[in-house]
Amino acid sequence: MARRADAQANRERVLDVAEDVFGHGGKSASTEEVARLAGVGIATVFRNFPTKAALLEAVLVRHFERLTAEAEARLDAREPGEAFFGFFRHLVADATKKIALAEALSEAGGAADSRATEAAQALRRAVGGLLDRAQQAGAVRDDVELPEVYALLVGASRAAAHAPLDDEVRSRMLGIVFAGLAPTAVPRNP
Amino acid sequence: MARRADAQANRERVLDVAEDVFGHGGKSASTEEVARLAGVGIATVFRNFPTKAALLEAVLVRHFERLTAEAEARLDAREPGEAFFGFFRHLVADATKKIALAEALSEAGGAADSRATEAAQALRRAVGGLLDRAQQAGAVRDDVELPEVYALLVGASRAAAHAPLDDEVRSRMLGIVFAGLAPTAVPRNP
Repeated sequence: MARRADAQANRERVLDVAEDVFGHGGKSASTEEVARLAGVGIATVFRNFPTKAALLEAVLVRHFERLTAEAEARLDAREPGEAFFGFFRHLVADATKKIALAEALSEAGGAADSRATEAAQALRRAVGGLLDRAQQAGAVRDDVELPEVYALLVGASRAAAHAPLDDEVRSRMLGIVFAGLAPTAVPRNP
Repeated sequence: MARRADAQANRERVLDVAEDVFGHGGKSASTEEVARLAGVGIATVFRNFPTKAALLEAVLVRHFERLTAEAEARLDAREPGEAFFGFFRHLVADATKKIALAEALSEAGGAADSRATEAAQALRRAVGGLLDRAQQAGAVRDDVELPEVYALLVGASRAAAHAPLDDEVRSRMLGIVFAGLAPTAVPRNP
Protein backbone atom coordinates (compact mmCIF):
# COMPACT_ATOMS: atom_id res chain seq x y z
CA MET A 1 0.00 0.00 0.00
CA ALA A 2 2.80 2.35 0.93
CA ARG A 3 4.67 1.27 -2.17
CA ARG A 4 1.65 1.95 -4.35
CA ALA A 5 1.30 5.41 -2.82
CA ASP A 6 5.00 6.00 -3.47
CA ALA A 7 4.64 4.90 -7.07
CA GLN A 8 1.69 7.24 -7.52
CA ALA A 9 3.63 10.11 -5.96
CA ASN A 10 6.59 9.43 -8.23
CA ARG A 11 4.34 9.37 -11.27
CA GLU A 12 2.81 12.72 -10.32
CA ARG A 13 6.24 14.23 -9.68
CA VAL A 14 7.43 13.10 -13.11
CA LEU A 15 4.34 14.65 -14.71
CA ASP A 16 4.85 17.91 -12.80
CA VAL A 17 8.46 18.17 -13.95
CA ALA A 18 7.61 17.21 -17.53
CA GLU A 19 4.82 19.81 -17.64
CA ASP A 20 7.24 22.43 -16.41
CA VAL A 21 10.09 21.50 -18.76
CA PHE A 22 8.09 20.88 -21.93
CA GLY A 23 5.49 23.56 -21.19
CA HIS A 24 8.19 26.21 -21.14
CA GLY A 25 9.51 25.39 -24.55
CA GLY A 26 12.06 22.70 -23.65
CA LYS A 27 11.00 20.55 -26.60
CA SER A 28 14.38 18.94 -26.96
CA ALA A 29 14.61 17.85 -23.33
CA SER A 30 14.93 14.10 -22.97
CA THR A 31 12.99 11.69 -20.81
CA GLU A 32 16.26 11.09 -18.94
CA GLU A 33 16.50 14.77 -18.02
CA VAL A 34 12.94 14.73 -16.73
CA ALA A 35 13.75 11.71 -14.55
CA ARG A 36 16.84 13.42 -13.18
CA LEU A 37 15.00 16.68 -12.40
CA ALA A 38 12.18 14.71 -10.76
CA GLY A 39 14.72 12.83 -8.64
CA VAL A 40 13.47 9.40 -9.70
CA GLY A 41 15.19 6.54 -11.51
CA ILE A 42 14.98 6.38 -15.25
CA ALA A 43 13.42 2.90 -14.90
CA THR A 44 10.51 4.44 -12.99
CA VAL A 45 9.82 6.89 -15.81
CA PHE A 46 10.06 4.29 -18.55
CA ARG A 47 7.80 1.88 -16.65
CA ASN A 48 5.08 4.54 -16.59
CA PHE A 49 5.85 6.19 -19.93
CA PRO A 50 7.63 3.92 -22.42
CA THR A 51 8.23 6.78 -24.89
CA LYS A 52 8.63 10.53 -24.78
CA ALA A 53 5.36 10.78 -26.73
CA ALA A 54 3.59 8.74 -24.03
CA LEU A 55 4.94 11.06 -21.34
CA LEU A 56 3.90 14.18 -23.25
CA GLU A 57 0.48 12.75 -23.94
CA ALA A 58 -0.06 12.05 -20.23
CA VAL A 59 1.00 15.62 -19.37
CA LEU A 60 -1.32 17.12 -21.96
CA VAL A 61 -4.27 14.96 -20.93
CA ARG A 62 -3.78 15.89 -17.29
CA HIS A 63 -3.55 19.56 -18.24
CA PHE A 64 -6.83 19.40 -20.21
CA GLU A 65 -8.51 17.51 -17.38
CA ARG A 66 -7.51 20.17 -14.87
CA LEU A 67 -8.82 22.96 -17.10
CA THR A 68 -12.07 21.04 -17.61
CA ALA A 69 -12.47 20.63 -13.85
CA GLU A 70 -11.87 24.36 -13.41
CA ALA A 71 -14.50 25.16 -16.04
CA GLU A 72 -16.99 22.78 -14.46
CA ALA A 73 -16.39 24.28 -11.03
CA ARG A 74 -17.54 27.63 -12.46
CA LEU A 75 -20.82 26.24 -13.79
CA ASP A 76 -22.56 27.04 -10.51
CA ALA A 77 -21.07 30.52 -10.17
CA ARG A 78 -23.41 33.27 -9.07
CA GLU A 79 -22.26 35.50 -11.94
CA PRO A 80 -22.40 33.36 -15.10
CA GLY A 81 -21.05 36.23 -17.20
CA GLU A 82 -17.96 36.64 -15.07
CA ALA A 83 -17.58 32.84 -14.92
CA PHE A 84 -17.51 32.64 -18.72
CA PHE A 85 -15.34 35.70 -19.41
CA GLY A 86 -13.03 34.89 -16.51
CA PHE A 87 -12.46 31.38 -17.80
CA PHE A 88 -11.89 32.67 -21.34
CA ARG A 89 -9.24 35.04 -19.95
CA HIS A 90 -7.71 32.22 -17.89
CA LEU A 91 -7.42 29.87 -20.88
CA VAL A 92 -5.76 32.50 -23.05
CA ALA A 93 -3.28 33.39 -20.28
CA ASP A 94 -2.54 29.69 -19.87
CA ALA A 95 -2.16 29.06 -23.59
CA THR A 96 1.58 29.37 -23.97
CA LYS A 97 2.18 26.31 -21.81
CA LYS A 98 -0.57 24.24 -23.38
CA ILE A 99 0.49 25.00 -26.95
CA ALA A 100 4.14 24.26 -26.17
CA LEU A 101 3.03 20.88 -24.80
CA ALA A 102 0.86 20.11 -27.83
CA GLU A 103 3.66 21.04 -30.20
CA ALA A 104 6.23 18.99 -28.32
CA LEU A 105 3.83 16.04 -28.48
CA SER A 106 3.31 16.55 -32.18
CA GLU A 107 7.08 16.66 -32.76
CA ALA A 108 7.56 13.53 -30.68
CA GLY A 109 5.26 11.79 -33.15
CA GLY A 110 2.11 11.54 -31.04
CA ALA A 111 -0.09 14.09 -32.76
CA ALA A 112 -3.43 12.50 -33.55
CA ASP A 113 -3.76 10.86 -30.21
CA SER A 114 -7.23 9.82 -29.10
CA ARG A 115 -6.81 10.37 -25.35
CA ALA A 116 -5.61 13.94 -25.78
CA THR A 117 -8.36 14.56 -28.33
CA GLU A 118 -11.00 13.23 -25.94
CA ALA A 119 -9.66 15.40 -23.12
CA ALA A 120 -9.72 18.44 -25.43
CA GLN A 121 -13.32 17.68 -26.40
CA ALA A 122 -14.35 17.46 -22.75
CA LEU A 123 -12.86 20.93 -22.22
CA ARG A 124 -14.79 22.25 -25.21
CA ARG A 125 -18.03 20.86 -23.79
CA ALA A 126 -17.32 22.49 -20.43
CA VAL A 127 -16.74 25.85 -22.15
CA GLY A 128 -20.05 25.30 -23.97
CA GLY A 129 -21.74 24.90 -20.60
CA LEU A 130 -20.29 28.21 -19.39
CA LEU A 131 -21.38 29.92 -22.62
CA ASP A 132 -24.96 28.60 -22.28
CA ARG A 133 -25.20 29.85 -18.72
CA ALA A 134 -23.74 33.26 -19.66
CA GLN A 135 -26.26 33.58 -22.50
CA GLN A 136 -29.16 32.57 -20.23
CA ALA A 137 -28.03 35.24 -17.79
CA GLY A 138 -27.97 37.82 -20.59
CA ALA A 139 -24.22 38.42 -20.28
CA VAL A 140 -23.44 37.18 -23.80
CA ARG A 141 -25.51 37.89 -26.91
CA ASP A 142 -27.71 34.94 -27.68
CA ASP A 143 -27.07 34.77 -31.43
CA VAL A 144 -23.54 33.36 -31.06
CA GLU A 145 -22.80 29.67 -30.89
CA LEU A 146 -20.02 27.53 -29.49
CA PRO A 147 -18.12 26.80 -32.75
CA GLU A 148 -17.27 30.44 -33.43
CA VAL A 149 -16.73 31.26 -29.76
CA TYR A 150 -14.37 28.30 -29.41
CA ALA A 151 -12.59 29.31 -32.61
CA LEU A 152 -11.99 32.74 -31.07
CA LEU A 153 -10.75 31.14 -27.88
CA VAL A 154 -8.33 28.98 -29.85
CA GLY A 155 -7.28 31.93 -32.00
CA ALA A 156 -6.71 34.29 -29.08
CA SER A 157 -4.73 31.54 -27.35
CA ARG A 158 -2.55 30.96 -30.38
CA ALA A 159 -1.99 34.67 -30.86
CA ALA A 160 -1.00 35.05 -27.21
CA ALA A 161 1.33 32.06 -27.36
CA HIS A 162 3.05 32.76 -30.64
CA ALA A 163 3.47 36.51 -30.78
CA PRO A 164 3.99 36.43 -27.70
CA LEU A 165 1.82 39.22 -26.37
CA ASP A 166 2.51 41.23 -23.28
CA ASP A 167 -0.24 41.37 -20.64
CA GLU A 168 -1.47 44.80 -21.74
CA VAL A 169 -1.96 43.85 -25.41
CA ARG A 170 -3.49 40.50 -24.48
CA SER A 171 -5.94 42.28 -22.22
CA ARG A 172 -6.85 44.83 -24.91
CA MET A 173 -7.27 42.05 -27.48
CA LEU A 174 -9.69 40.27 -25.15
CA GLY A 175 -11.46 43.58 -24.58
CA ILE A 176 -12.36 43.69 -28.28
CA VAL A 177 -13.56 40.08 -28.31
CA PHE A 178 -15.61 40.56 -25.16
CA ALA A 179 -17.18 43.74 -26.55
CA GLY A 180 -18.12 41.70 -29.63
CA LEU A 181 -19.78 39.09 -27.43
CA ALA A 182 -21.69 41.61 -25.31
CA PRO A 183 -25.48 41.58 -25.63
CA THR A 184 -25.31 45.25 -26.63
CA ALA A 185 -23.03 44.49 -29.60
CA VAL A 186 -24.54 45.18 -32.98
CA PRO A 187 -24.28 41.97 -35.01
CA ARG A 188 -22.25 42.67 -38.11
CA ASN A 189 -22.49 40.39 -41.03
CA PRO A 190 -18.98 40.28 -42.41
CA MET B 1 18.16 39.80 -72.98
CA ALA B 2 15.83 37.02 -74.07
CA ARG B 3 17.80 34.64 -71.87
CA ARG B 4 17.44 36.95 -68.90
CA ALA B 5 13.67 37.13 -69.47
CA ASP B 6 13.56 33.34 -69.68
CA ALA B 7 15.51 33.04 -66.47
CA GLN B 8 13.10 35.42 -64.75
CA ALA B 9 10.09 33.50 -66.09
CA ASN B 10 11.59 30.23 -64.86
CA ARG B 11 12.22 31.71 -61.45
CA GLU B 12 8.60 32.90 -61.18
CA ARG B 13 7.31 29.51 -62.33
CA VAL B 14 9.37 27.77 -59.66
CA LEU B 15 8.01 30.15 -57.02
CA ASP B 16 4.43 29.59 -58.22
CA VAL B 17 4.78 25.83 -58.00
CA ALA B 18 6.56 25.98 -54.65
CA GLU B 19 3.83 28.23 -53.24
CA ASP B 20 1.21 25.79 -54.42
CA VAL B 21 2.96 22.65 -53.16
CA PHE B 22 4.19 23.93 -49.80
CA GLY B 23 1.18 26.20 -49.21
CA HIS B 24 -1.14 23.22 -49.35
CA GLY B 25 0.63 21.30 -46.66
CA GLY B 26 3.21 19.46 -48.76
CA LYS B 27 5.95 20.12 -46.22
CA SER B 28 7.89 17.03 -47.13
CA ALA B 29 8.02 17.80 -50.84
CA SER B 30 11.58 18.14 -52.10
CA THR B 31 13.18 20.88 -54.17
CA GLU B 32 13.58 18.23 -56.91
CA GLU B 33 9.81 17.67 -56.99
CA VAL B 34 9.20 21.40 -57.30
CA ALA B 35 11.64 21.55 -60.25
CA ARG B 36 9.91 18.63 -61.94
CA LEU B 37 6.42 20.10 -61.47
CA ALA B 38 7.63 23.47 -62.74
CA GLY B 39 9.12 21.80 -65.78
CA VAL B 40 12.60 23.26 -65.25
CA GLY B 41 15.94 21.63 -64.65
CA ILE B 42 17.06 21.02 -61.10
CA ALA B 43 20.18 23.11 -61.80
CA THR B 44 17.95 26.11 -62.51
CA VAL B 45 16.26 25.76 -59.15
CA PHE B 46 19.47 25.31 -57.21
CA ARG B 47 21.10 28.26 -58.96
CA ASN B 48 18.29 30.51 -57.70
CA PHE B 49 17.62 28.77 -54.41
CA PRO B 50 20.60 26.83 -53.03
CA THR B 51 18.53 25.27 -50.23
CA LYS B 52 14.92 24.36 -49.59
CA ALA B 53 14.90 27.02 -46.85
CA ALA B 54 16.00 29.65 -49.40
CA LEU B 55 13.21 28.60 -51.76
CA LEU B 56 10.60 28.69 -49.00
CA GLU B 57 11.84 32.04 -47.79
CA ALA B 58 11.49 33.51 -51.29
CA VAL B 59 7.96 32.15 -51.57
CA LEU B 60 6.96 33.55 -48.20
CA VAL B 61 8.52 36.96 -48.90
CA ARG B 62 6.70 37.19 -52.25
CA HIS B 63 3.45 36.19 -50.56
CA PHE B 64 3.81 38.91 -47.91
CA GLU B 65 4.74 41.47 -50.56
CA ARG B 66 1.61 40.67 -52.57
CA LEU B 67 -0.59 41.00 -49.50
CA THR B 68 1.09 44.30 -48.62
CA ALA B 69 0.46 45.59 -52.13
CA GLU B 70 -3.19 44.56 -51.85
CA ALA B 71 -3.50 46.37 -48.52
CA GLU B 72 -1.83 49.50 -49.91
CA ALA B 73 -4.12 49.47 -52.93
CA ARG B 74 -7.07 49.75 -50.53
CA LEU B 75 -5.69 52.81 -48.74
CA ASP B 76 -7.46 55.11 -51.19
CA ALA B 77 -10.75 53.23 -51.10
CA ARG B 78 -13.89 55.33 -50.89
CA GLU B 79 -15.17 53.22 -48.00
CA PRO B 80 -12.31 52.96 -45.48
CA GLY B 81 -14.41 50.76 -43.21
CA GLU B 82 -15.08 48.21 -45.90
CA ALA B 83 -11.43 48.45 -47.02
CA PHE B 84 -10.26 47.54 -43.52
CA PHE B 85 -12.83 44.84 -42.73
CA GLY B 86 -12.60 43.40 -46.23
CA PHE B 87 -8.84 43.08 -45.98
CA PHE B 88 -9.10 41.53 -42.51
CA ARG B 89 -11.51 38.96 -43.96
CA HIS B 90 -9.21 38.37 -46.93
CA LEU B 91 -6.14 37.75 -44.74
CA VAL B 92 -7.96 35.27 -42.54
CA ALA B 93 -9.33 33.39 -45.55
CA ASP B 94 -5.81 33.31 -46.99
CA ALA B 95 -4.20 32.19 -43.75
CA THR B 96 -4.07 28.46 -44.29
CA LYS B 97 -1.64 28.83 -47.15
CA LYS B 98 0.53 31.42 -45.43
CA ILE B 99 0.81 29.50 -42.19
CA ALA B 100 1.65 26.28 -44.03
CA LEU B 101 4.46 28.16 -45.80
CA ALA B 102 5.77 29.67 -42.57
CA GLU B 103 5.75 26.30 -40.85
CA ALA B 104 7.46 24.58 -43.75
CA LEU B 105 10.13 27.29 -43.64
CA SER B 106 10.55 26.87 -39.91
CA GLU B 107 10.91 23.09 -40.31
CA ALA B 108 13.43 23.56 -43.11
CA GLY B 109 15.54 25.46 -40.60
CA GLY B 110 14.97 29.03 -41.80
CA ALA B 111 12.78 30.40 -39.04
CA ALA B 112 14.21 33.68 -37.80
CA ASP B 113 14.88 35.01 -41.24
CA SER B 114 15.28 38.75 -41.63
CA ARG B 115 13.83 39.10 -45.14
CA ALA B 116 10.62 37.28 -44.23
CA THR B 117 10.43 39.26 -40.99
CA GLU B 118 10.86 42.54 -42.85
CA ALA B 119 8.16 41.57 -45.34
CA ALA B 120 5.83 40.64 -42.47
CA GLN B 121 6.49 43.99 -40.81
CA ALA B 122 5.66 45.85 -44.02
CA LEU B 123 2.33 44.02 -44.11
CA ARG B 124 1.68 44.98 -40.51
CA ARG B 125 2.35 48.65 -41.31
CA ALA B 126 -0.03 48.48 -44.27
CA VAL B 127 -2.77 47.03 -42.05
CA GLY B 128 -2.04 49.86 -39.62
CA GLY B 129 -2.70 52.33 -42.43
CA LEU B 130 -6.06 50.72 -43.19
CA LEU B 131 -6.95 50.77 -39.48
CA ASP B 132 -6.11 54.49 -39.18
CA ARG B 133 -8.26 55.36 -42.15
CA ALA B 134 -11.16 53.22 -40.89
CA GLN B 135 -10.94 54.94 -37.50
CA GLN B 136 -10.83 58.40 -39.09
CA ALA B 137 -13.93 57.47 -41.06
CA GLY B 138 -15.68 56.40 -37.85
CA ALA B 139 -15.99 52.77 -38.98
CA VAL B 140 -13.83 51.39 -36.17
CA ARG B 141 -13.88 52.57 -32.56
CA ASP B 142 -11.05 54.94 -31.93
CA ASP B 143 -9.85 53.49 -28.62
CA VAL B 144 -8.28 50.40 -30.21
CA GLU B 145 -4.69 50.27 -31.40
CA LEU B 146 -2.76 48.24 -33.93
CA PRO B 147 -1.04 45.78 -31.53
CA GLU B 148 -4.30 44.27 -30.28
CA VAL B 149 -5.98 44.46 -33.69
CA TYR B 150 -3.03 42.71 -35.30
CA ALA B 151 -3.01 40.12 -32.52
CA LEU B 152 -6.66 39.40 -33.34
CA LEU B 153 -5.84 39.16 -37.03
CA VAL B 154 -3.03 36.70 -36.31
CA GLY B 155 -5.21 34.77 -33.87
CA ALA B 156 -8.19 34.53 -36.23
CA SER B 157 -5.82 33.45 -39.00
CA ARG B 158 -4.29 30.74 -36.86
CA ALA B 159 -7.69 29.54 -35.69
CA ALA B 160 -8.92 29.36 -39.29
CA ALA B 161 -5.80 27.53 -40.44
CA HIS B 162 -5.46 25.03 -37.64
CA ALA B 163 -8.98 24.01 -36.78
CA PRO B 164 -9.66 24.23 -39.82
CA LEU B 165 -12.89 26.21 -39.84
CA ASP B 166 -15.58 25.94 -42.46
CA ASP B 167 -16.64 29.17 -44.18
CA GLU B 168 -19.75 29.58 -42.06
CA VAL B 169 -17.94 29.35 -38.71
CA ARG B 170 -15.10 31.55 -39.95
CA SER B 171 -17.61 34.17 -41.02
CA ARG B 172 -19.44 34.04 -37.69
CA MET B 173 -16.14 34.27 -35.80
CA LEU B 174 -15.24 37.40 -37.76
CA GLY B 175 -18.73 38.75 -37.08
CA ILE B 176 -17.95 38.73 -33.35
CA VAL B 177 -14.58 40.43 -33.84
CA PHE B 178 -16.04 43.07 -36.14
CA ALA B 179 -18.87 43.77 -33.71
CA GLY B 180 -16.21 44.27 -31.04
CA LEU B 181 -14.41 46.77 -33.28
CA ALA B 182 -17.54 48.71 -34.20
CA PRO B 183 -17.77 52.27 -32.91
CA THR B 184 -21.03 51.32 -31.19
CA ALA B 185 -19.33 48.57 -29.17
CA VAL B 186 -19.23 49.16 -25.44
CA PRO B 187 -15.60 48.93 -24.33
CA ARG B 188 -15.29 46.14 -21.81
CA ASN B 189 -12.35 46.06 -19.51
CA PRO B 190 -11.55 42.39 -19.15
